[in-house]
Amino acid sequence: MNKEYNTVRTTSNDQPFLPINPFAEPITTMSSANTNHHGRDDDMIDIDFQNTTNDRSTNSVMNVDLVNTHYDDFQTIDWLKDLMRDRFRHRLLRTKSHQSFFNKLLMYHDAWSGWLCVLLVGLSAGVIAAVIDIGTNWISHLKHGICLNAFWLNREQCCWASRQLQYDNVNSEECPEWFTWPQVFGTYKKGAGEFLLSYIMYIFWSTIFATFAVLLVKVFAPYACGSGIPEIKTILGGFIIRGYLGKWTLLIKSIGMMCATSAGLILGKEGPFVHIACCCGNIFSYLFPKYGRNEAKKREILSAAAAAGVSVAFGAPIGGVLFSLEEVSYYFPYKTLWRSFFCAMVGALVVRSINPYGNGHDIQFSIDYSVPWASFELLPFILLGILGGLWGAFFIKTNIWWCRFRKNSRLGQYTIFEVVCLALITAIIIYPNPYTRMSMSELIKRLVSQCRVEDMIDLCDYPNAQFYNGKSKGSIGLAGPGVHHAIWKLFFALIVQVVLVTFTIGVKVPSGLIIPSMSIGAITGRIIGIITEQLAIQNPTFILFRHDCSKEENCVTPALYAIVGACAFLGGVSKMTVSLVVIMFELTGGLNYIVPLMAAAMTAKWIGDGFVRGGIYDAHIELNGYPFLDNKEEFNFTTIAADVMRPRPEQSSSLAYLTQNGMTFLEVENLLKETTHTLYPVVVTREQPYLVGQIQRRDLQIALKSQKMQRFRLSQSLIQFTSSSETTINSDYEVDNQNEQRLTTNPEVIRIGNLLDQAPIIVTDQTPMETVVDLFRKLGLRQAFVTRNGRLRGIITKKDILRHVQQLTSSNTETTYYDN
Amino acid sequence: MNKEYNTVRTTSNDQPFLPINPFAEPITTMSSANTNHHGRDDDMIDIDFQNTTNDRSTNSVMNVDLVNTHYDDFQTIDWLKDLMRDRFRHRLLRTKSHQSFFNKLLMYHDAWSGWLCVLLVGLSAGVIAAVIDIGTNWISHLKHGICLNAFWLNREQCCWASRQLQYDNVNSEECPEWFTWPQVFGTYKKGAGEFLLSYIMYIFWSTIFATFAVLLVKVFAPYACGSGIPEIKTILGGFIIRGYLGKWTLLIKSIGMMCATSAGLILGKEGPFVHIACCCGNIFSYLFPKYGRNEAKKREILSAAAAAGVSVAFGAPIGGVLFSLEEVSYYFPYKTLWRSFFCAMVGALVVRSINPYGNGHDIQFSIDYSVPWASFELLPFILLGILGGLWGAFFIKTNIWWCRFRKNSRLGQYTIFEVVCLALITAIIIYPNPYTRMSMSELIKRLVSQCRVEDMIDLCDYPNAQFYNGKSKGSIGLAGPGVHHAIWKLFFALIVQVVLVTFTIGVKVPSGLIIPSMSIGAITGRIIGIITEQLAIQNPTFILFRHDCSKEENCVTPALYAIVGACAFLGGVSKMTVSLVVIMFELTGGLNYIVPLMAAAMTAKWIGDGFVRGGIYDAHIELNGYPFLDNKEEFNFTTIAADVMRPRPEQSSSLAYLTQNGMTFLEVENLLKETTHTLYPVVVTREQPYLVGQIQRRDLQIALKSQKMQRFRLSQSLIQFTSSSETTINSDYEVDNQNEQRLTTNPEVIRIGNLLDQAPIIVTDQTPMETVVDLFRKLGLRQAFVTRNGRLRGIITKKDILRHVQQLTSSNTETTYYDN
Repeated sequence: MNKEYNTVRTTSNDQPFLPINPFAEPITTMSSANTNHHGRDDDMIDIDFQNTTNDRSTNSVMNVDLVNTHYDDFQTIDWLKDLMRDRFRHRLLRTKSHQSFFNKLLMYHDAWSGWLCVLLVGLSAGVIAAVIDIGTNWISHLKHGICLNAFWLNREQCCWASRQLQYDNVNSEECPEWFTWPQVFGTYKKGAGEFLLSYIMYIFWSTIFATFAVLLVKVFAPYACGSGIPEIKTILGGFIIRGYLGKWTLLIKSIGMMCATSAGLILGKEGPFVHIACCCGNIFSYLFPKYGRNEAKKREILSAAAAAGVSVAFGAPIGGVLFSLEEVSYYFPYKTLWRSFFCAMVGALVVRSINPYGNGHDIQFSIDYSVPWASFELLPFILLGILGGLWGAFFIKTNIWWCRFRKNSRLGQYTIFEVVCLALITAIIIYPNPYTRMSMSELIKRLVSQCRVEDMIDLCDYPNAQFYNGKSKGSIGLAGPGVHHAIWKLFFALIVQVVLVTFTIGVKVPSGLIIPSMSIGAITGRIIGIITEQLAIQNPTFILFRHDCSKEENCVTPALYAIVGACAFLGGVSKMTVSLVVIMFELTGGLNYIVPLMAAAMTAKWIGDGFVRGGIYDAHIELNGYPFLDNKEEFNFTTIAADVMRPRPEQSSSLAYLTQNGMTFLEVENLLKETTHTLYPVVVTREQPYLVGQIQRRDLQIALKSQKMQRFRLSQSLIQFTSSSETTINSDYEVDNQNEQRLTTNPEVIRIGNLLDQAPIIVTDQTPMETVVDLFRKLGLRQAFVTRNGRLRGIITKKDILRHVQQLTSSNTETTYYDN
Repeated sequence: MNKEYNTVRTTSNDQPFLPINPFAEPITTMSSANTNHHGRDDDMIDIDFQNTTNDRSTNSVMNVDLVNTHYDDFQTIDWLKDLMRDRFRHRLLRTKSHQSFFNKLLMYHDAWSGWLCVLLVGLSAGVIAAVIDIGTNWISHLKHGICLNAFWLNREQCCWASRQLQYDNVNSEECPEWFTWPQVFGTYKKGAGEFLLSYIMYIFWSTIFATFAVLLVKVFAPYACGSGIPEIKTILGGFIIRGYLGKWTLLIKSIGMMCATSAGLILGKEGPFVHIACCCGNIFSYLFPKYGRNEAKKREILSAAAAAGVSVAFGAPIGGVLFSLEEVSYYFPYKTLWRSFFCAMVGALVVRSINPYGNGHDIQFSIDYSVPWASFELLPFILLGILGGLWGAFFIKTNIWWCRFRKNSRLGQYTIFEVVCLALITAIIIYPNPYTRMSMSELIKRLVSQCRVEDMIDLCDYPNAQFYNGKSKGSIGLAGPGVHHAIWKLFFALIVQVVLVTFTIGVKVPSGLIIPSMSIGAITGRIIGIITEQLAIQNPTFILFRHDCSKEENCVTPALYAIVGACAFLGGVSKMTVSLVVIMFELTGGLNYIVPLMAAAMTAKWIGDGFVRGGIYDAHIELNGYPFLDNKEEFNFTTIAADVMRPRPEQSSSLAYLTQNGMTFLEVENLLKETTHTLYPVVVTREQPYLVGQIQRRDLQIALKSQKMQRFRLSQSLIQFTSSSETTINSDYEVDNQNEQRLTTNPEVIRIGNLLDQAPIIVTDQTPMETVVDLFRKLGLRQAFVTRNGRLRGIITKKDILRHVQQLTSSNTETTYYDN
């Protein structure tokens, strides 16, 4: 954990913001992955290469370090080997458990550690989320005023104790204990001066908060910016980004998020919760070496943490699990499902018991409409879906364009300036409109609520409405002038949010996209809802409305349209499907509205897919060039392994390999000097390049070094990659005569066969790339060898495949329109 | 579809009941899969082996029939090849789509056919489920009486129109229009005679219905018995059971289920709904050749259908999708998730609009408790979980023991007799107790409902109770004598159900396990709930209760315990986790009770796993010896590929293979005669057995046959497995001189290289079996070749792996207690 801390700090100086673009690096044949050499190899010698045990249980697995997985920064991981290493560790533990009681305890601890770890992750994610919610609320209210008696209370808490509670025009509490800034400065009179003073204080605080957020991120944890979901997808897909899930990122992201949200910027804090929860997952996994020291196993904890992140953000445990499964996770074994659910559940429970919203509700945007939805309403719902899909495509294109512009122009150097300007402009624009002045989640809550008796808001100005149950304005009502004003205000709010969010997502503060999308969708939905409502009231005999509506009874609930709109617009941007619908209905408690939500989400996805393939997260992954091999899209091209493998036949470079029995110490050392591959294939002889196995560069280096210390006159010694037991077992083993002679006459034979991994993954050169891609995706491979009739022809690495897929899709964009 | 029909009919004669036990068959080396030869090969020649196109797009994939996948009955499928075949078909379609407008339409039809198909499946599953529900209700009531004015109405419908509605002691409607059987026979007086007559009529009808059900199954569709879930798991795992999902099975299962449920047997109809929905999926998939003719693609539809099955059974679309994902599906790509959800949604909507329960509720066991659950109640909930786990283990052990006894003893020959006896005994035992006399789902509904003012049932005899909201008995109440009686009756009901269900599950009628498990759990839960409630009322100062309870207010809702008990017991039997909790809360609408449900489900699973690994479905899969390679359990042994491959080194049998250039027509023909493998490896030469590729027996046979017709003097002709283009491309190709000569001098060279599949899956002999098993599971392989240094050493088939896993687990049962 110390190492991470250091990495973050050093990175923050020389490589400020997410500097990774592996494709930009010159790629050498065979080992594009191995880019960073920090000389760490030397201080990590813990492989005893002379351990020549013939025990099958150890020998058959592999001969690598059992405790530590070592990957350099920005490397892809080898799932297969990591998982195998874990199974081996587990077997060892079980074998030992018969020896003593302590070992038995150790085994039980090992079995429970996964559950314990996700419990801790759930608890911590819940606590952090609640703290952030409370903090954001307080800081947000600070823009408007202060509770002079007890400055640590926000407006609501301040007014709880008050007896002179009033509501202003948007249903916000007002009480004498709460001092607005003009009141603090002594201006009690309402008027232009008071408004101007409030306005200026609002702009002042917004800019201060935004500046604070960007400075924090810039100075302490550059990885804390953005929503983090694209990077977490990449990390879960098997990539190492050191420090991305560290303590500093967690701390800075939490604080920065409170400030950024409170600054009134058009961004949400729900997406970053996933990042924060994953940070918790990463940190707690170090308490359990089983997870902390095995990158593949750690990703099981991270998957559960991602579920907890969504769960604490929305109070939606099932939606969280599905989000983790559908959107971010790569390797999601069965037991992770159950653990994720547990983790998400714990997180949601913690948030609920701390109760940061102070409403006693389990459900954030609780809905309870008095009128069920009618069949004809599916038409406007689908219209909302279409709009959501169009907006999603528009947003992804413009946002990516702007992010690319920022990256490639000089603007990228003035990140602090950019954020301060943005905050200033945002504050100036949004203050005058009450619907943008309130926080976005408050706006959504208003929009998805049915009008009630006590609502004084202009959106609920239905003069002729009658009330159901003495509570909700369900009955027929022509809109009053307030509603007309509200529609115009909402329309301007819509324009403002659409424009601002495009420029906001991607700046260097923690920023999520979910709440802005929902807000824009809810505004659109509510507007269309009101229009439909008024149409139905004024033309009750029209063919569409005749069946469900009448002059006496209202059939349209505009608030439902807001929910559906939020779902559609979020779906258009994120391209989520099942998880979106489940999150929406957990968020609203509306089990009865699955069909409208589904219709909207489905339409949004289909329409959106027509313009842009994949959601905003995939677009950002592509923009940043992360090596992410999507396991959802189908590989649909006709290339074969021979087209992808390296070395390419048309290139002059040849394959670097070791021969099993015929190389001298000097030759091997030279090969290691000349090439930088992480892995070398071992073949029988130079003339008969039949693949025997593979050997890690690290292992080979350590072995040679250790030999150097022990012996002299090494350069002519033969190095033999055969375990001693092997030659006796296999009669059909081919060793050409010359080597056989050298082997028997020369006493200096160095046998390092037990470092040889005899289980490489092999494909033939005629194998269709569909199969090879499948193999890489499903087994999480890092590389595979290509043979033809047993002869080694080349190697394919994960990055070769990524490059290949990228080339093909860019040359053949036509396929993107097609859903198979 | 005709073929299926025939298969079912013929099967029903000679192989009456699920006769498949692939392990019982003598397994030949290398191709244990190929057991049935119906001579179908001959009438399916549609492979043009002389098509020597060099187009990369066709050549690289494979040279097999594009339209039909042909598998024999009881064979495992090759997912990899099937999916590749589909992608190829799809590419072809896209290429053609540029040629004409009609082809473009075809392409759009192809893109939509998946959605269209699941829409049809959802619709049909919903309609069938509603019809079955209505039918079952009517037939069930027929046991008690008849609506003389309109015999097609059940009791409730009969009494809807009545003005003299009364309720008997268990809240059943009574009205003059509904004639009980004694009334039909003229006995209007209540008394012993009337009771006896009702009793006899009940027994009579029960036996009739059961007999009808078993006869239907026995004569028309033997595959219609049981719940079908183990078989569907196996089928989805990649196994062919012809006719299992056919029209006849669908029809007979639907009718048989109505009869069996109505007979009062202790079985449910929710499990079989999954089978019925899958039948719909299979039948409709034949409308779309993309799915109907490709076994791997068809399984995508079947996965969605399974989700729809659960959805229509419980009105739980999300639970259905998770059930399909967690429990039954094997290959569940991303797009299937969304389609499954759509399918499940459509099914649920159809059931809701037909409204078979007639209660206007979307939710089957709607709960709405007035008191929230208290923390101390987690203790009894966990106790319920423990009981559930214990019961699950007990049930699985005894049920499997009884099924094995039935299978191996003479009882298996008297299936009709067994069912009739069972129905007779069941009817005699259950009639006197009102809680067993009512249908199980009615019982569950009663048990999970809070007591209300209008409840006259003895379970709700709380004389001192006060009423909340004028509706529910929430306030404090000591139990009256009615409750004591009810507890005794429930206890006897529990004993009766526990004993009877063990003997019932597995008889030859359609029978599900879900509702009986839930019923047993609900009874246990309600009893424990009442005990806890009375303890809390009598000892309100006890340390556990002090915090949440008081003398004035009741803190325990026994009905909630019934829900939790149902969840725990179902969890103990099925070992479901997330899907169970989601189903339970969709079934009850209780978003607030996730924590109790989760605690109970979790405890039940953990306790149950301590005794029996896997759920009842896995146990039945093992009992029947289905070749199901579980992708949830981890393979945790240290064997390597060399230990599993065939031929075994210790056996004398040698590997059957073809050489690339050196075999004459006669030699190949002899090899085909002597061996029955489905697949032959092709190597370079006999001396240098480097693997070149693989060739299907079928293809080879057809090729030879076609040659025979065209030419004479074949026996000495050389057969060459090289495509014409190949030799020119590859300079390093080895052909030994003798063959090269023969090849040039002999004019009769038959080149059938384009039948050669040059992309076999290869593993080295030192590869750990963990990796090999992973490969088979995740890619859905049928076989892989084992090489050492490029030389072919053997072959591993899916069945070899299954046998190996079985051997290892039976010799090393200790591992089963350990959750990794």
